[in-house]
Amino acid sequence: MKNLVEFEVHSFKKEKIIVYKDPSYELREDFVAIEEPLEIKVKYSNLPDSPISLSTTMRTPGNDYELVAGFLYSEGLINDIEDIVRFQYEKNFLGRENINSVLVEIKSNESKDLDKFKRKVLTNSSCGLCSAVSIDQVYKRIQRLPRGDFKVNEELILKLPDTLNLQQSIFYKTGGVHASALFDKEGKLFCIMEDVGRHNAMDKLVGKMLSEKKIPMDDTIVLFSGRASFELVQKSIMAGIPFIAAIGAPSSLAIDLAKSFDVTLVGFLRNGRFNVYSGFHRLKEIDKLTCRTKIF
Amino acid sequence: MKNLVEFEVHSFKKEKIIVYKDPSYELREDFVAIEEPLEIKVKYSNLPDSPISLSTTMRTPGNDYELVAGFLYSEGLINDIEDIVRFQYEKNFLGRENINSVLVEIKSNESKDLDKFKRKVLTNSSCGLCSAVSIDQVYKRIQRLPRGDFKVNEELILKLPDTLNLQQSIFYKTGGVHASALFDKEGKLFCIMEDVGRHNAMDKLVGKMLSEKKIPMDDTIVLFSGRASFELVQKSIMAGIPFIAAIGAPSSLAIDLAKSFDVTLVGFLRNGRFNVYSGFHRLKEIDKLTCRTKIF
Repeated sequence: MKNLVEFEVHSFKKEKIIVYKDPSYELREDFVAIEEPLEIKVKYSNLPDSPISLSTTMRTPGNDYELVAGFLYSEGLINDIEDIVRFQYEKNFLGRENINSVLVEIKSNESKDLDKFKRKVLTNSSCGLCSAVSIDQVYKRIQRLPRGDFKVNEELILKLPDTLNLQQSIFYKTGGVHASALFDKEGKLFCIMEDVGRHNAMDKLVGKMLSEKKIPMDDTIVLFSGRASFELVQKSIMAGIPFIAAIGAPSSLAIDLAKSFDVTLVGFLRNGRFNVYSGFHRLKEIDKLTCRTKIF
Repeated sequence: MKNLVEFEVHSFKKEKIIVYKDPSYELREDFVAIEEPLEIKVKYSNLPDSPISLSTTMRTPGNDYELVAGFLYSEGLINDIEDIVRFQYEKNFLGRENINSVLVEIKSNESKDLDKFKRKVLTNSSCGLCSAVSIDQVYKRIQRLPRGDFKVNEELILKLPDTLNLQQSIFYKTGGVHASALFDKEGKLFCIMEDVGRHNAMDKLVGKMLSEKKIPMDDTIVLFSGRASFELVQKSIMAGIPFIAAIGAPSSLAIDLAKSFDVTLVGFLRNGRFNVYSGFHRLKEIDKLTCRTKIF
């Protein structure tokens, strides 16, 4: 039995961006996929215990009931859909449903220790209860804001993926790993790290720079081989990197976070073109353009 | 100060695969990226408390010290590389270093509650301490082995991505989400789910099928828009799906898991070709080939 609330769920939203396509920049509205945290709290319906927070996942809103049911099934906490007794979004202080937190009551024939399941689940690093809180937590955790007043031209940006491709040794062998690469503001490669997990590749990069006493990393550019998630932007900002580029798409929350810290975020950097989502002033030609026309 | 052990780390390995490239199959050796769990245990060097298990991440071995340092830095647990007092792989029962578990001792000026950090980290669903244990845990958790003695031809496989592309509505708008799609053995689409997180897209798919009482899903094929990780193969097997296809690469552990359950695993399904890593008998022409030549 499920209790679903009646509200509209958005899986994507419009964003004002600047597109570079040879030979010029143009202003455009584009859609980006929404990324929002979902905290899953679970309790047994026949036990008086308080619910425990089992997992927080960064997801695209929509089909949350299915997401939670599938997650609990894969974790072995339910065997059947009937094991879900209640599914309810929590209320915020205004009494409205909070789509970032859900309480699930489940049946159990055996007495399973929920805490044990909590320990078993795999973690990757991030935080958050709602997008504003997620961004706020980065502010609280950071030691110094990213610094870098440099400006680059589009040629430098367009060359970054070529450098990445030349250096990715595990990818060259297997075609199966993500990479994070760090460049200086002239586009010279400092370091590249690879991993099956994109957050791991970035952790390795940050750890390497940390062990070489190069953090915070003013005046640097990081390039991701895939998409730019909230988590990857968070790790970049924590390390003081003011310029982020990704071969793939950024999520809504990644863009919001980059804007909050005035970090430049470039996405879809491939085939001789790219989109700019925030920190426009670090791109030479856009800076001139925006000064002239005040489009942002 | 770090204590690193002296052993060779492998980031990729050779795998015997069958490649389909129009018009025929051929046997080949190819490299796959290694995916292995790493449990990160942390304790304060000045406190007598036992270490707590902060995180288990599925990573490619290599640069583990940097991975852990970067992770702890991004989580705000260390501010400087000097905060790491000791970094040590745990020993297994033979007294050898276990590269899947590391104990880190850190300094702290303030008294931070490590358990709080543990709760804060984001989870996605998986399990594991070493690859054998990871696979064993799936065996323990599963209710019934995947069933499906059907055979498909290469035409059916090659058409799956076209169907996926036509149906991906959020991707069409944003270019920024993963998808999981379920097909019957004739290649007819049952269901498709999208999310910024690939594990979420699969959870949504499994949850949807669960709510429609269609689990276990005998005689079905699942297609992933990206790579096939251990976690995605695990979720497929838990749901009883005997045939897994991915547009991207599979990891070493994903292949090992698929082999253990005799599930078919196809990767790099794009541009009119694909690789087969396990469960060869579900591909019509390969089945004839292997019967004739006993290559596997």
